[in-house]
Amino acid sequence: MAAASRRLLVDVHTHVYLPRYVSFLRSRTSVPRVFSRTTPEGKTEERLLILDAEPSGGRPMGSQQFWDRAEKLRFMDKHGIDISIVSTANPWLDFLPAATAQVLASELNSDLEEYCSTSPNLADGTLKQLYGFGLLPLVPEASSASLLEIIQQISNLPHLKGVIIGSRGLGKGLDDDALEPVWAAIEKAALVVFLHPHYGVDQKEWGEKDNGHVLPLALGFPFETTIAITRLILSGVLDRHPDLRILLAHSGGALPQLSSRLASCIDHDPVVASRLQHDARYYLGKLYFDAVAYGSEELGFVSDTVGRAEKYVKSGASAAASAGAGGVQRKLGSRRMLFGTDHPFFPPLGEAEKWKSVVENLEAIDGVFGWDEAEQNAVRGGNAIELFGLGKIP
Amino acid sequence: MAAASRRLLVDVHTHVYLPRYVSFLRSRTSVPRVFSRTTPEGKTEERLLILDAEPSGGRPMGSQQFWDRAEKLRFMDKHGIDISIVSTANPWLDFLPAATAQVLASELNSDLEEYCSTSPNLADGTLKQLYGFGLLPLVPEASSASLLEIIQQISNLPHLKGVIIGSRGLGKGLDDDALEPVWAAIEKAALVVFLHPHYGVDQKEWGEKDNGHVLPLALGFPFETTIAITRLILSGVLDRHPDLRILLAHSGGALPQLSSRLASCIDHDPVVASRLQHDARYYLGKLYFDAVAYGSEELGFVSDTVGRAEKYVKSGASAAASAGAGGVQRKLGSRRMLFGTDHPFFPPLGEAEKWKSVVENLEAIDGVFGWDEAEQNAVRGGNAIELFGLGKIP
Repeated sequence: MAAASRRLLVDVHTHVYLPRYVSFLRSRTSVPRVFSRTTPEGKTEERLLILDAEPSGGRPMGSQQFWDRAEKLRFMDKHGIDISIVSTANPWLDFLPAATAQVLASELNSDLEEYCSTSPNLADGTLKQLYGFGLLPLVPEASSASLLEIIQQISNLPHLKGVIIGSRGLGKGLDDDALEPVWAAIEKAALVVFLHPHYGVDQKEWGEKDNGHVLPLALGFPFETTIAITRLILSGVLDRHPDLRILLAHSGGALPQLSSRLASCIDHDPVVASRLQHDARYYLGKLYFDAVAYGSEELGFVSDTVGRAEKYVKSGASAAASAGAGGVQRKLGSRRMLFGTDHPFFPPLGEAEKWKSVVENLEAIDGVFGWDEAEQNAVRGGNAIELFGLGKIP
Repeated sequence: MAAASRRLLVDVHTHVYLPRYVSFLRSRTSVPRVFSRTTPEGKTEERLLILDAEPSGGRPMGSQQFWDRAEKLRFMDKHGIDISIVSTANPWLDFLPAATAQVLASELNSDLEEYCSTSPNLADGTLKQLYGFGLLPLVPEASSASLLEIIQQISNLPHLKGVIIGSRGLGKGLDDDALEPVWAAIEKAALVVFLHPHYGVDQKEWGEKDNGHVLPLALGFPFETTIAITRLILSGVLDRHPDLRILLAHSGGALPQLSSRLASCIDHDPVVASRLQHDARYYLGKLYFDAVAYGSEELGFVSDTVGRAEKYVKSGASAAASAGAGGVQRKLGSRRMLFGTDHPFFPPLGEAEKWKSVVENLEAIDGVFGWDEAEQNAVRGGNAIELFGLGKIP
């Protein structure tokens, strides 16, 4: 693995609103949309509104950071990021009629391929600086044929390495049996699924106090991811598609911390338990987790839950003994964790040279108790090189 | 601390439906209620229905475990539990008119005091086997005066050491300004607040598949607790009441894993940040966490997030250096974690000698990487003896 040995920093969680998508959002009169307003200071600003009744009238979109590739590359340069695996930011295409979603997905995938294929080469010339996750037209009424067609398109585009998806699927969530051919096709095409939240949970949970975006972002987002992946596990998708590679946003949300509780709840419900091949904790070892958790203790813990997964295989000879405990287990788990930034979100408040959100995620990797340089380098880039097959392409 | 040195096993998360409460639920025709039905096998069984549209028609309540004190003591004996701090199981009194809630709270508190005060003494005669958390009439329209009166009642009942509360408060959540005198009175009375979930999140999140109670219990419960304590932190209650002692059910739900993300989201919202005295992670060091998480890695991680809290104090001289890293930090955090069982829930499926749920929680404590016998004994009972002041009373 020559590329990995160069100690690349690879960002697997970084978003773009492609120009075609922004134009489309500007043309809309209902959510999600981009609209202009006059600030109290008399300036004109564009704001992105992606949910009904969003706090603070949405978020400012005045920054070129949201769509300009040159800004993405400057951001990467500023933070020493060698490669970014770029994905369209939420809300994707959920809100569109099936036919429109199909056309737009195809066009945006082509746009993203061009965005990546025309990006600079890395210094040694073997790799591009940008790769991408494509979009699927996962909307109600979408036909399997149309989804399979787009999966085929993406797998033919050399710089797209996976797909980013939300939690709604065809409207009934990711545990919908109708998605079975989609999982099969993604697995066969060896695309990485980046599972990312958008809706959070019902906003009535946040109460009447004005806490800005804090509660939906800090809690709602990870809750949505946790629910989606748990429902996916319970539906048996990971049993039926053992080679499906799913990357969870925000370090899997709350799944790691609730995984033993989940296993206990399943254990106490024989009907649900009988449908699964393994203890719930086993499946964490089949997943990938971005390292966007802002703290060393969090990353170390996620790593622990991945590293212990083999102990929970239900089969003749348990691999428990080989999984080891403590430090060994934590090192093992690091192989499924991947650095990310969440750019262009969480920008610095001031004119700081570096983004605090990025610096924190890098420092978190360096500070994990029990990780040595090998694990740090793997999480910073080596694992991504391997997961996205970047060690193999010219 | 002579009592602690005897290495007691103390269960701080153990519930009862007192006979008066069960009679009351049997008399009701709407949720929550206890009703009888005939099983497919022709037997009559009682079922407890606590939420509208609950999966599987509620849960079986045939077992004496739900209300019989002799069963509680047998359960304790079977598992080597010396002392239980018993609380009424959800849904408490949320659903009642204020006047009814007030009367019933008072009666149930007296019942629980008798339940505890007439329980056997421990072998050496200085302590009872049972202590309790009282109930507050926290319902819409409840007056501060009525709440303060019940807090006074509880603090006069010698075997009641705290209160168990849900997340709704007076109907607007725990961040409601109207609760300010209640927090002040609880703090002054030195009662422990046991914050426990009941509603979960909107059941539409669980989708259309039948997964029994797994999703609402494994995810909804901890999500509700996480939201409630986060809103409480954001409202400044922990800043205004630094001596308030709050014990979080199920190891704080997802709060530990999302705490650095929470801190980052607050950091990026100056309005919210300006209202808090400290970084969000600081407050985890002010809280108490039951050790009901079913896994060693989970407990170790919660301990890490408690142990690191002092690093996040915002004041002149940071205590960061003294908090230490890795092993030291994890040992430190163990002082705010307390063994629990969740009895009478998660009963064994078969006629097992011991309950798997209890055995798992005990094994989890023994297996935490970095905890020695001192930390294990503290979590098993020493911390509870101290938190509930049981080392001081005759």
